[in-house]
Amino acid sequence: MAEVVTTKLEVRRAVEAARAAGKSIGFVPTMGALHAGHQTLLQRAAENGFVVLSIFVNPTQFGPSEDFLSYPRNLEADRSLAEQAGAHLIFAPAAEEVYAETHSTWVEEEAMTEGLCGARRPGHFRGVATVCLKFFNIVRPDRAYFGLKDYQQFKVVQRTVRDLDLQLEVIGVATHREADGLAMSSRNAYLSAEARQWALAIPRALQQAREIVERGERSPRTVTDLIRAELVAEGKLKVEYIEIVDAETLELVVPLVGQVLIAVAVYCGDARLIDNVLVECRPEA
Amino acid sequence: MAEVVTTKLEVRRAVEAARAAGKSIGFVPTMGALHAGHQTLLQRAAENGFVVLSIFVNPTQFGPSEDFLSYPRNLEADRSLAEQAGAHLIFAPAAEEVYAETHSTWVEEEAMTEGLCGARRPGHFRGVATVCLKFFNIVRPDRAYFGLKDYQQFKVVQRTVRDLDLQLEVIGVATHREADGLAMSSRNAYLSAEARQWALAIPRALQQAREIVERGERSPRTVTDLIRAELVAEGKLKVEYIEIVDAETLELVVPLVGQVLIAVAVYCGDARLIDNVLVECRPEA
Repeated sequence: MAEVVTTKLEVRRAVEAARAAGKSIGFVPTMGALHAGHQTLLQRAAENGFVVLSIFVNPTQFGPSEDFLSYPRNLEADRSLAEQAGAHLIFAPAAEEVYAETHSTWVEEEAMTEGLCGARRPGHFRGVATVCLKFFNIVRPDRAYFGLKDYQQFKVVQRTVRDLDLQLEVIGVATHREADGLAMSSRNAYLSAEARQWALAIPRALQQAREIVERGERSPRTVTDLIRAELVAEGKLKVEYIEIVDAETLELVVPLVGQVLIAVAVYCGDARLIDNVLVECRPEA
Repeated sequence: MAEVVTTKLEVRRAVEAARAAGKSIGFVPTMGALHAGHQTLLQRAAENGFVVLSIFVNPTQFGPSEDFLSYPRNLEADRSLAEQAGAHLIFAPAAEEVYAETHSTWVEEEAMTEGLCGARRPGHFRGVATVCLKFFNIVRPDRAYFGLKDYQQFKVVQRTVRDLDLQLEVIGVATHREADGLAMSSRNAYLSAEARQWALAIPRALQQAREIVERGERSPRTVTDLIRAELVAEGKLKVEYIEIVDAETLELVVPLVGQVLIAVAVYCGDARLIDNVLVECRPEA
């Protein structure tokens, strides 16, 4: 039975006890509304003797016009799913426990946050990096696990951990997809049955993009045009961005070379959805 | 004999060994050019079983027109002084060991850095907070010691540690002064014998300010006017700022109430010198 705690002190005590028992610590930070993608992260985290899951809808990573208030919250369902997937401790704090009233310190990563979601959600990655640093300092894990659907988040956190000399490994875990290809996301809960069908254009477009790059296409413009055409074909989706960047630096690559990330953000019904694929541009192609 | 190491890995290993031997870890971060003030910090840090001193002239906390290149450096003298004062390990890394070539993450404290030196040295406290966070993560001390001459630095670091949930105590140690009142500072090395005499107006002015506040003066304007008159009396010093702020929040206080910090920055010969006094505004005064 996974214990649910709400204070930093309880987390520290539980983690210290696990460490004293010789266990390594795995950490999966989430905003709750857990789905099979989170379960994959937890199962991977089971390579540690003690697995901590945090559930915290972090206010500082939402913009003023974003969905902080409507973001799905369901601690009881989350608890059950987390237990099935092997979490030992669930940290579900209130915002007041996480942030002092006079909180005034921010962690800012300035290279990886220029494009993609960083360009469209000012302050978002500042909130993400800050809350991750805080939670890493509370939990002091050996390894932390992030889904690659949020690839930019993964890279920003990894860079932050390196630059600030934290002693933990940041591990990216492949995107978990539904049978029809849609990337798992808590925000899929916003989709009507109809919008759920429209959203399938996203993995379809990314799959087509991957194929032409693997067949040798090296013009990012040609690839993004193909993606855009697929996304807007039914007239239901609104494209926020389509970008192709170096998978390591997140800088634009023209022409395509090395490992690239093809990433999109799309408005679909009431949801803003993101997805991506990693593609290797083989020299011989 | 204090060991001098230059890599993060050596620090981690030495600290881990000390911790495994049941010792607590005290940490004194410095830019070298050690003087009796630093020795006071080291002696205080001896309340821990293992004392780490870092010597690193941190490039990211100097502005483009500041004294990074001319800042005094003398590792052999520092080593001898540190040993006398009880340091067990000296961490003296090169800049390349501290910062990756692609370093892109910064720690920014936004409330404590508005006034005083923060207003005059853009980016300074960002550099300080970032390097302190890095060193805290490398050394993982139980306690870190800062001189109160750099009071704003002490408060910024203390706030950063609180806000990012680091598990260490940040301890401020009273300013060490020469017999004639001048606050110890590595930058005093820039002073000619003549300028060294001019600089005595600084502790004299602060002492006078303390006295009139203790006798009941509550107008910051009256107090700063008195300080300014004393500083410029000989026509040798150039005042950068004179500010009176709440000792806890570093916000301006009008009229004076509670514990206040009276702080000055002055150009004297080739040096920019700072100093301050803490004064309690007693209600009955």
